[in-house]
Amino acid sequence: MQFRMKTHPLPQEKLEALLQRSPAGTLATVNADGTPYAVPVHFVRVEDKVYVHGLPAGQKLENIRANPRVCLTVWEMFGLLPDEEGRPCETNTAYESAVLQGSASLVDDEQEKRHALAAVVAKYMPELAEAPIPENMLRGTAVLRIEPDAVTGKYWP
Amino acid sequence: MQFRMKTHPLPQEKLEALLQRSPAGTLATVNADGTPYAVPVHFVRVEDKVYVHGLPAGQKLENIRANPRVCLTVWEMFGLLPDEEGRPCETNTAYESAVLQGSASLVDDEQEKRHALAAVVAKYMPELAEAPIPENMLRGTAVLRIEPDAVTGKYWP
Repeated sequence: MQFRMKTHPLPQEKLEALLQRSPAGTLATVNADGTPYAVPVHFVRVEDKVYVHGLPAGQKLENIRANPRVCLTVWEMFGLLPDEEGRPCETNTAYESAVLQGSASLVDDEQEKRHALAAVVAKYMPELAEAPIPENMLRGTAVLRIEPDAVTGKYWP
Repeated sequence: MQFRMKTHPLPQEKLEALLQRSPAGTLATVNADGTPYAVPVHFVRVEDKVYVHGLPAGQKLENIRANPRVCLTVWEMFGLLPDEEGRPCETNTAYESAVLQGSASLVDDEQEKRHALAAVVAKYMPELAEAPIPENMLRGTAVLRIEPDAVTGKYWP
């Protein structure tokens, strides 16, 4: 059956553009019992790293504390490409995807945390880029730094 | 920082509707070295199960053969909900998500395989529901059956 996600390697600049523009991705971690656990996250690409922010508690953070290995998966599906002769098995999908495998750790350094959160605001709410981030918000927010050791991009067609 | 994915438990029927309508999700598996690996997949919900079809080779299948545990994560982001007073930390996200944890296995039974692929065609290409699935396509396609043991839905607001 052809109807599946066929692949080409996504050129570096398109891969980077996908990571820059995507509003959310899916962050996979491994539970204590060795099973996978993946949840949607907002994220921001800063140089070769990725930052994810959120509540300072939860299963994702618990998992990362025990096992820092993560996989961030980001994709856009542009639509199905129906076969001209109406064969369901010759249908394809137009998409781009990025799979970023790496290690995550909690950011303790206040300066790096502010820098990461400023990048979040610049990405999602550029009109608020000058608004201050209050001290208590900074303390009440966990910021994860993901350092990738492999980033793979694919696309079709 | 409030700007994160706040949660309410998604009511059962909305969770089911999300799983029915979503064109793709992210399937997380665990690599041989214990690191997570997650890729976008098309999928179809059939009763309480999920089927995923694709090439009969690749890392995802290799992982599942060694460790059948998977996590299928599906979400829709409807947009950001800016704070009326322009505080970046009071921004929220409108979304729905489903996290389905379970076990995957390759479908060997030809009848179940045809049934799953027919459900795929009915979901993605309902206008081709009557088109035949050729024997060689059936043989050349891998179908995974995912049997969930936990399905969690969340949403905001």
